Amino acid sequence: MSTQAPHLTATQERSLRDIFPGDSLLLTPEQTLIFATDAGRRMGTPLAVVRPTTEAQVVELLRLARAERLPVYARGRASNQVGACVPARPGIVVSLLHMNRILDIADDDFVAEVEPGVVTSDLQRAVEARGLFYPPDPASIDISTIGGNVATCAGGMRALKYGVTREYVLGLTAVLPGGKVLRTGGRCHKNVVGLDLTRLFVGSEGTLGIVTRITLKLLPLPQATATLLAGFGSMEAAMHGVRRIFRAGILPVALEFLSPEVLDCVARRQTPPWPDSVRGALLIRLDGSRESLPLEVRRMHGALHTPGDAADGIPGNEPPVWSAHGVGRDEEEPLWAMRRGISPSSYLVRPNKIGEDIAVPRGRLLDALTGIRAIAQAHDLPILTYGHVGDGNIHVNIMYDGADPSETTRADAATVEVMHLVRSMDGTLSGEHGVGMAKKEFLHLQLSPLETELMRQVKHAFDPLGIMNPDKAY
Amino acid sequence: MSTQAPHLTATQERSLRDIFPGDSLLLTPEQTLIFATDAGRRMGTPLAVVRPTTEAQVVELLRLARAERLPVYARGRASNQVGACVPARPGIVVSLLHMNRILDIADDDFVAEVEPGVVTSDLQRAVEARGLFYPPDPASIDISTIGGNVATCAGGMRALKYGVTREYVLGLTAVLPGGKVLRTGGRCHKNVVGLDLTRLFVGSEGTLGIVTRITLKLLPLPQATATLLAGFGSMEAAMHGVRRIFRAGILPVALEFLSPEVLDCVARRQTPPWPDSVRGALLIRLDGSRESLPLEVRRMHGALHTPGDAADGIPGNEPPVWSAHGVGRDEEEPLWAMRRGISPSSYLVRPNKIGEDIAVPRGRLLDALTGIRAIAQAHDLPILTYGHVGDGNIHVNIMYDGADPSETTRADAATVEVMHLVRSMDGTLSGEHGVGMAKKEFLHLQLSPLETELMRQVKHAFDPLGIMNPDKAY
Repeated sequence: MSTQAPHLTATQERSLRDIFPGDSLLLTPEQTLIFATDAGRRMGTPLAVVRPTTEAQVVELLRLARAERLPVYARGRASNQVGACVPARPGIVVSLLHMNRILDIADDDFVAEVEPGVVTSDLQRAVEARGLFYPPDPASIDISTIGGNVATCAGGMRALKYGVTREYVLGLTAVLPGGKVLRTGGRCHKNVVGLDLTRLFVGSEGTLGIVTRITLKLLPLPQATATLLAGFGSMEAAMHGVRRIFRAGILPVALEFLSPEVLDCVARRQTPPWPDSVRGALLIRLDGSRESLPLEVRRMHGALHTPGDAADGIPGNEPPVWSAHGVGRDEEEPLWAMRRGISPSSYLVRPNKIGEDIAVPRGRLLDALTGIRAIAQAHDLPILTYGHVGDGNIHVNIMYDGADPSETTRADAATVEVMHLVRSMDGTLSGEHGVGMAKKEFLHLQLSPLETELMRQVKHAFDPLGIMNPDKAY
Repeated sequence: MSTQAPHLTATQERSLRDIFPGDSLLLTPEQTLIFATDAGRRMGTPLAVVRPTTEAQVVELLRLARAERLPVYARGRASNQVGACVPARPGIVVSLLHMNRILDIADDDFVAEVEPGVVTSDLQRAVEARGLFYPPDPASIDISTIGGNVATCAGGMRALKYGVTREYVLGLTAVLPGGKVLRTGGRCHKNVVGLDLTRLFVGSEGTLGIVTRITLKLLPLPQATATLLAGFGSMEAAMHGVRRIFRAGILPVALEFLSPEVLDCVARRQTPPWPDSVRGALLIRLDGSRESLPLEVRRMHGALHTPGDAADGIPGNEPPVWSAHGVGRDEEEPLWAMRRGISPSSYLVRPNKIGEDIAVPRGRLLDALTGIRAIAQAHDLPILTYGHVGDGNIHVNIMYDGADPSETTRADAATVEVMHLVRSMDGTLSGEHGVGMAKKEFLHLQLSPLETELMRQVKHAFDPLGIMNPDKAY
């Protein structure tokens, strides 16, 4: 092994310069450093960063990359948490932020065509101004790009009622290693011709090709929304609240849980509106027509306050001890601002975080939360649990002080235990973030050797030399 | 080439007998004949029909099939319209109707686990009895099986609001050629670990493996439903009605169109409730809570009767000339019975039918319907158009008399023209039925050589010898 730092050859550099003039090619470490990492803070080694503005440049790049066996890492805003866009082996980083045009919003087709670098909330605002609706809303919505959302099959709060990114991708253009251009699907809302290559790309974490254009399904924009915050006397009572909502036949837009530890954490930054007796909360969004929404809010209150079924024989099946609600964006905003404050305020508890996003079958939520609490106690560490309980998807933030070797060791041990706990419940290592680099070590807990082998063979069909985001995801 | 009819060797027959005792193996032509075809009426050649009751038998079968290079054709109730389950080359037909157990309905997980032979409406009734909801409802719901629905990614009326089968498959077990057992996904409503092999199976038309177990997502059952039938003065006016509904921000459960030709056809079997001035209709279903549904019905009437925007400058943008509605199953049933009567009554027009199920971008619906009408006139044939216009998905029934060689020739020519018309609008050859044998000749109009090559390579990862439903779908 050479002791010299990995670098491009002079010929490779010249070839890249031919494709990417001016500052669309970055080569110096000072320029490439910020492209070496993502929100998960793992570091890799960019040999170069290229910033295409056209599909033709991506084609040229992937011709070169195949000829030179250069690993290629596509990225948007790198809000990914698991290192999915980190150049784990030295290679070419492709920033798609300069391909950020909304190409078309077709009112009558209920379709948008976008380049991958469009920021998710920019698209949402653009379509909402025309009475249309693009539901996927990952927490990083103001930062993340549609290309990144496709690469990770991003979810979000509204996934409960409206589904994840997969449900909205009707077609796409992807450039494959070697420079071939694949166009799949189209503007039809239904299409069953051939194997579903379109959805195969969704969630593939940049391992198959570089997506350069995406056709998205849109819905009519609901007229009105409302948000309820229901505070319960215990975590158990909040989980029974989840059960009562679904048993009442209600499918909310969003159904978020806040554990007692998270409520305490929020209380460090703001004087909370809830009384001390609240030890677990549900944040619930509903939508509908202006006429019917007030009735639905009343119905939700009714479902939450229905006395627990005594036959259940389960302790803690009590209604909320406190609640609040807001109708319309202005009234709802303070409640969602509080929700968004969880992640920043978690650092008031400890300076470092291991953030997991496990999911379990919905009926196992209370078991999972109880098990995670026991792991926190066993390791004497704060673990914050919150998130999309309607989907069985829980964010698990294991907080620790990285300057304290003992806490660091215990945090790592707690992470391993959380993963084993989740798998013992037929849960998944990731409901939203993906695998990237961070979860590769746990993959064997979930994927069988046969599954992994098939995934690799499928990848091989698209990327026979293994240069697209190698060593990631599966 | 041998002139002898294709048949199993004595050894192959003995091996099959070892796996499939008694009448779980059918060998004589009288027994196997009905397994040679599907609802599309194409015929193939079953060398044998096997009827497994266990996964272990399927494993043994696929070991044998690989060793003997025997083509394998899985089937449920064979309600498929395009020959997807016809043994196009002589091979083993695998009827999954004896694997028809509902293994679990998990109220709190909102999940059902089923074997592939469960009839779709049986599952729906079972889950609805427990306040749960499985939305996909292909027209063949009382016949079709969940396994067949997965193989074709079945849609149905409710796809507009609730999506297609793909959206409900959380995991599955499939036996691959050679007998390896693949388990993908699980009971989590969200899961982004690895490539999405689960959805790759959905719509794969039996070309990758035999699915033996399916985990389905369920929703809470909506409390109430209502149905409206709105009759318009013209096809154009009905299409503008579709536009007004979406512009009002309404996403109905179902939004079905009936062309004037279809209304005439229905009138041959029953005295229609609508006046003669109705020359195009929309059949619309809504659902929701008991309290809000009446408001939503009123809102739908409002949207339909909103005067057309003069600025549109489009002729035919007029409100319905007649309408009716029913709330609750009993009142709605006559309207849906009328809808279900379309297919049988179409045979009163002509004894033979070429049934297509194209889809176009939603904004091109009127263009597509107008173009199809022109094709009907040019070939002097009745073409009945109806179906899921909310999804841009239109059933196109080209009616002809198979005893009349001229009509037969014209029907074939009209089919080719419909396919070219659809593709000129960026439409798809199939929104629901799939490709099977029937649409292979048109595939080149839609799939690029690169797409086809990638699909074949993906298939190769699962089925390297090409024995799973060969020569179909892509």
